[in-house]
This record gives sequence, structure tokens and C-alpha cells, in this order.
Amino acid sequence: MTVQENIQQLAYEQLFKDAQEIRQLIRVQIEHVTMPQCPLYEEVIDTQMFGLSKKIEFATKLGLIEESKGKALLDNLEKELSELHGKYLNQL
Amino acid sequence: MTVQENIQQLAYEQLFKDAQEIRQLIRVQIEHVTMPQCPLYEEVIDTQMFGLSKKIEFATKLGLIEESKGKALLDNLEKELSELHGKYLNQL
Repeated sequence: MTVQENIQQLAYEQLFKDAQEIRQLIRVQIEHVTMPQCPLYEEVIDTQMFGLSKKIEFATKLGLIEESKGKALLDNLEKELSELHGKYLNQL
Repeated sequence: MTVQENIQQLAYEQLFKDAQEIRQLIRVQIEHVTMPQCPLYEEVIDTQMFGLSKKIEFATKLGLIEESKGKALLDNLEKELSELHGKYLNQL
């Protein structure tokens, strides 16, 4: 593995780990959706998503990850987030 | 220059460019401090600072920049931001 490939792999692993942490936050929220809605919790998720998007933007500009891979990481999280919103709206 | 050094240099240039953009936002705000304070503007700066801090965190974890260099980028911006707040408080 070249130095470049090694850094690319590390970059992806790091971004994937961040995405997993946000996914965990989202899942906890989905599981507790019958509890009173906590807007602060969603703000935390939004903030984390923004942070991850900035890291992905940076890694993409440096050529450390492919744009499509970075986009997929974010898109998957967005899908889980909209599932969360859908479940919440059904409770209303 | 090795591949590793090349990526490190690109990473620093990218972060520095981000910092310059935030600096520009702060300076515009300082120059127009006699205008009615606009909280939205400060929120924009805070959001940009948060984004930059996330990129620096990521670059540091990957060993692309030294922790001290990343910290210096943020610290300098924080100083300019507190100068902005100081000027604003003197206007009250």
C-alpha cells in the first residue's frame, strides 16, 4: 500500500467512525420517539452532521476520499434522520 | 518533497484559506461595528469557526498537521473575535 493509499484509508475510517457515532445518536432518538420530543437532541444531531460534512468537504478537496463516497456517507445519515422525522410526525 | 509532506502542505494551505475567509468575516464585522449589532452575523462566524475546528481535528487525527499549528490557527481567530466583542461592548 502506498503512503497516499494509507492516508486515504485512514481518512475514510475516520469519517466512517464519525458517521457511526451520529448514526448511534439518531438510533437512540428513534427508539425513544414516544418520549416527549427533545428539540435539543435534534440540534445536537444537526451540529454533528454539519461537522461531518465539513470534514468530508476537506478530505474531498485534498483528494483523500472520492466525492461519491463522502456523499454516500452523508446521504445515508440524512435518510435515517428523515425516518426519525417521519416516525415523529406519525406520533402527532 | 515526499507524498506525505505534499498532502501535509495541501492540508495546511486548505485550513489556512478557511481561516482567512473567517478572518475576513470578522474584519468586516469590526469595521461596521457602529452599525446595529447583527446577532445573525456572529452566528455565521461561530458556525464557520466550528466547521474549521472540525477540519483541524480531522487533519490532526490523520497526522496531516501538527496539533500546535492547528491550535494556533484557531487561537488567532478567537483573539480577533474577542477584539470584536470588546469593541462592541465599548459602544454600549
